[in-house]
Amino acid sequence: MNRYNTVEFQNTVLSGFWSERYNMIRDTTIWAVYNRFVGTGRFAAMKMDWKEGMPNRPHIFWDSDLAKWAESAAYLLRMQENHKLERVVEEFIDDIEAHQDANGYYNIYFTVVEPQARFTRRVDHELYCAGHLIEAAVAYYEATGKDRFLKLMEKYADHIERVFVIDGSASFKTCGHEEIELALYRLYRCTGIKRYLDLSRFFINARGTSKEDYYDFAGARYAQDHLPVREQTTAEGHSVRACYLYCAMADIAREDGDAELSRACDAIFNDITERKMYITGGIGSSAHGEAFMKAYDLPNLQAYAESCAAIGLIFFAHRMNLLAPNGKYGDIIEKILYNGFLSSISLDGKSFFYENPLELDPYLIGRDTSVKYGGTRMPITRRQEVFGCSCCPPNITRFISSAANYLYTTGEGILYINQYMASATSIKTDGWDASVSQQTSYPWDGDVIFNYKGQPVTLAFRIPSWCENYKITLDGKDAAYTLENGFALVKTQGDACVGLSFDMPVTFVEANPAVREDCGKCAVTRGPVVYCAEGVDNGGQLYDLKLDITSPVAVIRDEELGVMALEIGASRRRVFDALYRTVGDDSQNVNVKLIPYYAFANRSECEMMVWLRY
Amino acid sequence: MNRYNTVEFQNTVLSGFWSERYNMIRDTTIWAVYNRFVGTGRFAAMKMDWKEGMPNRPHIFWDSDLAKWAESAAYLLRMQENHKLERVVEEFIDDIEAHQDANGYYNIYFTVVEPQARFTRRVDHELYCAGHLIEAAVAYYEATGKDRFLKLMEKYADHIERVFVIDGSASFKTCGHEEIELALYRLYRCTGIKRYLDLSRFFINARGTSKEDYYDFAGARYAQDHLPVREQTTAEGHSVRACYLYCAMADIAREDGDAELSRACDAIFNDITERKMYITGGIGSSAHGEAFMKAYDLPNLQAYAESCAAIGLIFFAHRMNLLAPNGKYGDIIEKILYNGFLSSISLDGKSFFYENPLELDPYLIGRDTSVKYGGTRMPITRRQEVFGCSCCPPNITRFISSAANYLYTTGEGILYINQYMASATSIKTDGWDASVSQQTSYPWDGDVIFNYKGQPVTLAFRIPSWCENYKITLDGKDAAYTLENGFALVKTQGDACVGLSFDMPVTFVEANPAVREDCGKCAVTRGPVVYCAEGVDNGGQLYDLKLDITSPVAVIRDEELGVMALEIGASRRRVFDALYRTVGDDSQNVNVKLIPYYAFANRSECEMMVWLRY
Repeated sequence: MNRYNTVEFQNTVLSGFWSERYNMIRDTTIWAVYNRFVGTGRFAAMKMDWKEGMPNRPHIFWDSDLAKWAESAAYLLRMQENHKLERVVEEFIDDIEAHQDANGYYNIYFTVVEPQARFTRRVDHELYCAGHLIEAAVAYYEATGKDRFLKLMEKYADHIERVFVIDGSASFKTCGHEEIELALYRLYRCTGIKRYLDLSRFFINARGTSKEDYYDFAGARYAQDHLPVREQTTAEGHSVRACYLYCAMADIAREDGDAELSRACDAIFNDITERKMYITGGIGSSAHGEAFMKAYDLPNLQAYAESCAAIGLIFFAHRMNLLAPNGKYGDIIEKILYNGFLSSISLDGKSFFYENPLELDPYLIGRDTSVKYGGTRMPITRRQEVFGCSCCPPNITRFISSAANYLYTTGEGILYINQYMASATSIKTDGWDASVSQQTSYPWDGDVIFNYKGQPVTLAFRIPSWCENYKITLDGKDAAYTLENGFALVKTQGDACVGLSFDMPVTFVEANPAVREDCGKCAVTRGPVVYCAEGVDNGGQLYDLKLDITSPVAVIRDEELGVMALEIGASRRRVFDALYRTVGDDSQNVNVKLIPYYAFANRSECEMMVWLRY
Repeated sequence: MNRYNTVEFQNTVLSGFWSERYNMIRDTTIWAVYNRFVGTGRFAAMKMDWKEGMPNRPHIFWDSDLAKWAESAAYLLRMQENHKLERVVEEFIDDIEAHQDANGYYNIYFTVVEPQARFTRRVDHELYCAGHLIEAAVAYYEATGKDRFLKLMEKYADHIERVFVIDGSASFKTCGHEEIELALYRLYRCTGIKRYLDLSRFFINARGTSKEDYYDFAGARYAQDHLPVREQTTAEGHSVRACYLYCAMADIAREDGDAELSRACDAIFNDITERKMYITGGIGSSAHGEAFMKAYDLPNLQAYAESCAAIGLIFFAHRMNLLAPNGKYGDIIEKILYNGFLSSISLDGKSFFYENPLELDPYLIGRDTSVKYGGTRMPITRRQEVFGCSCCPPNITRFISSAANYLYTTGEGILYINQYMASATSIKTDGWDASVSQQTSYPWDGDVIFNYKGQPVTLAFRIPSWCENYKITLDGKDAAYTLENGFALVKTQGDACVGLSFDMPVTFVEANPAVREDCGKCAVTRGPVVYCAEGVDNGGQLYDLKLDITSPVAVIRDEELGVMALEIGASRRRVFDALYRTVGDDSQNVNVKLIPYYAFANRSECEMMVWLRY
């Protein structure tokens, strides 16, 4: 048995901030994505009757899009009955059952488009798709207790074992896009069948050990294939692939007590969060390969910071916290949750960003005025309903529908409170029988009333890294606590009411001097929320704004966006005609309105900046 | 006869700053480029015996490379006998004579590679090459009085007239890369044959009037083909092509007194210099098509600012000044001369920049660590001896070998002093019989002693736009002068000694608030010279430097570079480990050394920045 375990989401009923997101996913987004997947022929493709020349040619990653949607549906079904939703998933499983090969193989593209090419090209996402199907099957079994889907996927996993390990008939050893590794571990945890653990370990150990074929445009580093995993110390290549691999590495490190693998995970986690992560928690700064760049190379305007990569880093941090609980993991998860992840979905829940830049300037779109193609690449300025490569939308739905996963970790006699979300949770596993609740307006203020009912326990509250001053009370009195690895440890004798009060002033943050793009600039934050300026509030040419960080900041409710906004003094230069002139001094004072980064691009197409001059 | 005329370079003997450059071209660069052109098979290609499968496949623009080299040689020969150089040019002409078609056609590529494709593809530089050959022929005739080359090129021009106008058998009307227009005008000026003027006018008037084929990746705008020339008001597309067209438009406007064409030239010149020009005088900010971008879109790190485009803008400004003398033209020429043009050649005269960025950071090269190609494009950090597309090196040699062209313009009873260069000039044309000289250490100080010997005249001295305070004396006493169009007009009664003293303090310049990249930054200038910081003097991460523009600035001679350098107070943050932290205040004071921009990248591969925070 593992020492630390997740209190899984189904034990928690959310209220407040995250229940609003959860309800939006349940009532709107899950169907919005479903309709777009129907409209683009993804669901129809499962009938396996597509022929060359027909519209909606299946793509190599369609299985994974569908699987993540089904996984999202499973999470929703786990919380609440929904016959309509369950019927769709059952039909989805019907289609798989009807068209799965006798040997267990299942893949849309490699059945209707290139059946002869099965398991011959590692760059074509075949095992990645299998992994997502396996995750969906596990989720659906855990939600409904119905094991039909799970059995189909066990059969597929058995086939994969045969092809990759027993017969060795596949043309490659590891998939160009990781996912199968963590999925097999999850299948093992659900079924207890050790062969799936072994197969996961096999794929992890094989990576970086042989020269296999890569994408034309990318090298071994792109798929984390440059070194055996235990020798890797830096985050490299495609950031989603990377994080999915790191997740599986952390799973296996924990399962096996593999210290070498743990150390690699540690080093990589630190490399990401101390050198390659935006202040929003976004990662994978390069659009060229959706990949990590060099340390401290974090361009804002052309930040890629894919939504799936943000989710991937949460998954990784979550697993690191199960290896050895530390407040820094919850800090990173929190940073991503309220910023670089949440920006990926519109406030109405219907459209999505694939990329989450830290700066937008519509003027620069088409800046290369005389070329028809090949000009400067700029991120889109408005969220879209669907993408050709639509990995992000169903990743967002499956994430939010299971967001309560990140609240609590249990250890022996200790309950780690990793996140603050208004919620009620009952913990009835692993010898635990307790119920806890949080009353809070988090992230808009830092007060949390935490009620605990159950056996005597140590409560370990994460002290957010953004918080310099805080107060903890136990049953109305100053609590005695010790600090350990970013947690404040409060011992209770059974039922307890703990009051947490995290001071949440507006804070101006600077980046390391090695981050070229942020020099002379600051990001404005309040609690876990990173703010940005938008053109719709502040006019154009935001880059000429200069914040007065000594002026008082007003914190104001914005009803339209449903957020706490900020107002702060600043100056900007008066307009003049000359292209160049001797430095003048005729700037004017202005008030700048800042809104939470995650809420940008919900009103109009306009400029946006996180890092502002000061 | 035109109202204003150039005092051509052959009338001037340079001394001081520009004679050093001139001598370097004459003694080193002309041969360095020659040797590279021999080494790359360009000269050998003129034997027309290349066959498919042989090395050094001729390129469509090789004729123009060779022609610009020959034009450079002609300018040098015009100043000074040089048998070795003359012999090379004579052999070059021998080759042309031996291989020119009976009908006058001459082009290496379209003789040995694709003879069947002559005048069928406008994007393939055929008339561009012809134009450069014509310019070289004119220059060589003017230098030596020998008309063999000129006659060959007249024959070619006659053929072009036949194919494009009389028979109309060419597949297109205007060349995708302008140059023929200004060359034909020059041929007309040299020979007096009006048909060449008509042909130049034909090409100018045809542009933008029909849908012709473009490059796959670019539209009509790329070759200034989006509108008839008289309707164009903005600078668009490939910046070298653009400037060569604008030159010819200004030539024809002046020749014909064409007010509509003049107005178009005016509007375009202002669009370039008031909205699309770097502080170095560089233009064509986009590497995507070597082209103009939107107004005020002037990225520094990825500035393209091709050397040929800088030269092209000088050519254009020079012609605008002949249309209607104005100090602003000399200002722009001066800005380019000492900055964006001069940066294109190494201090030893042996290597060249094609691109002249305003910021370099070697760390960013290969920033997309996992892709093999298709990553972020960055300019090279060191000058090279030759390029595959080697338009710049021989353009630089022909420019410097005729740089004295930009000194003086004559009008009726008025001599315009457009540039300040230590020099002696005799003016014996158009009824003029005068000799003038300048003693000055320009650009390192602003004192000029100007001696004039000749008939009574008005001397019009350009007051540099960077100069706020100046003094003018006439024969030792304060001079009476009037200001007109950027010139100070001093009347003389014959021989005169005029003392000019332009205050040349270090000046901090800001860019228009619409220039996103320069907000919060300043450029440091002294007189016409723009300065930059280099890593070799100031350590890395120049972007974190913050100049103290109130601190005294030391002006110091740097013997290694042969320049006046600056030392100025600044601060930079102390190194810290965190990726992000609350804004601190532990910067340290440092001294920053600045060198003239044109001298960057002559010592080592390192960071460089023109626009610095302050």
